[in-house]
Amino acid sequence: MMEHTVKAFDDDIGELRGLIAHMGGLAESAIEASMVALRRHDLEAAQRIIDGDKEIDALETEVEKLAIRLIALRAPMADDLREVVAALKIAGVVERIGDYAKNIARRVPAIDDRGHIEPLSLLPAMASMATDMVHDVLDAFAARDPEKAVHVCEQDRAVDDFYNSIFRTLVTFMMENPKSISQAAHMLFIAKNLERVGDHATNVAEMVYYAATGEYMGERETGDTVPIMGN
Amino acid sequence: MMEHTVKAFDDDIGELRGLIAHMGGLAESAIEASMVALRRHDLEAAQRIIDGDKEIDALETEVEKLAIRLIALRAPMADDLREVVAALKIAGVVERIGDYAKNIARRVPAIDDRGHIEPLSLLPAMASMATDMVHDVLDAFAARDPEKAVHVCEQDRAVDDFYNSIFRTLVTFMMENPKSISQAAHMLFIAKNLERVGDHATNVAEMVYYAATGEYMGERETGDTVPIMGN
Repeated sequence: MMEHTVKAFDDDIGELRGLIAHMGGLAESAIEASMVALRRHDLEAAQRIIDGDKEIDALETEVEKLAIRLIALRAPMADDLREVVAALKIAGVVERIGDYAKNIARRVPAIDDRGHIEPLSLLPAMASMATDMVHDVLDAFAARDPEKAVHVCEQDRAVDDFYNSIFRTLVTFMMENPKSISQAAHMLFIAKNLERVGDHATNVAEMVYYAATGEYMGERETGDTVPIMGN
Repeated sequence: MMEHTVKAFDDDIGELRGLIAHMGGLAESAIEASMVALRRHDLEAAQRIIDGDKEIDALETEVEKLAIRLIALRAPMADDLREVVAALKIAGVVERIGDYAKNIARRVPAIDDRGHIEPLSLLPAMASMATDMVHDVLDAFAARDPEKAVHVCEQDRAVDDFYNSIFRTLVTFMMENPKSISQAAHMLFIAKNLERVGDHATNVAEMVYYAATGEYMGERETGDTVPIMGN
């Protein structure tokens, strides 16, 4: 391949990576903002998060168009082509993380704290763990750093444990506060969304690892975490 | 482009479509099987569904490899390339539908009916609506039929309405049966998974419509359905 073609490919893939980093930053901020809106029962802030998701969706479309153009014009081979397809997939996952922030924001009107739903205070802590994973995996992606990717995967167990603990806390809360069951049910879904954000960060970490090393990180279970408790 | 190259591309894209149809059939069956396992509290059947998801995942990997090979060897342009990328995306969505079946199966041990959780009987009906959408959208994909795709999207509202009704029924059930709250919470998640299956079928329908007509079907909201009810 001629030198100028390699350079052009590198420029394009650099642009692709830049778009994904931008998407990731927006998704991470949206999750954090959803927690603030939730705690403050701030409906306007929630609406801004919902509206803002369109920007993330638009960036994914841009990644897709650029990837198609890149494939059509540069005809990348083997590893390069695999990298473009990986970027497409990672953009898809980041878009889904943005969707989780939107979904959380849509539950803000359904949860009116007024200080009496104690388990609500656990969600921002869980969100921080999940957004840290998103932040770290985007760093790993930018630096093509497989060790950092492994580290992200290791964090996922803590998020899963946190989720299981919140599930149990919320079920107990529901038993003791039947009038708040509907609100607590929405909080269950929010906790589940955050758990899935951790899973998606793990999925991206596995893609980053594969792209950097050519090897699979090893089978990891990132399906739905299902706490089993007594009836 | 030479005739034989066009023919080779058509063969490859046909193979890609065949793989996706196969994936879709497996995902549809897995959702149906999860409902049977749930009603019968059949842990072995649930485990078979969980194990079977690996086959769907493997097919997605096959789609991806074939798509990469197809792009590398045939260097498809414009519409053809877009069709390959659409197939990649649709395979990703179908894989997620398979994940929902797995997630439902993983909740089977947590829900022991013994005839006293009345709202459980609503889930199979909701599942049928969602799997009908999956079935129809795969038909639309196979036939490149935009009208059928529109019809799938129209079904989604009924699934959303069903979900909202189940949410309310389950919250009321929880209030009246505090000892079954944990099981009812798992059922809430199952209902949500089924609602998401409908959303994903809708997303595929939009991709099928775009691939067939070159136009977007128009903005439709497929985010998380959030029923708001009094506290």
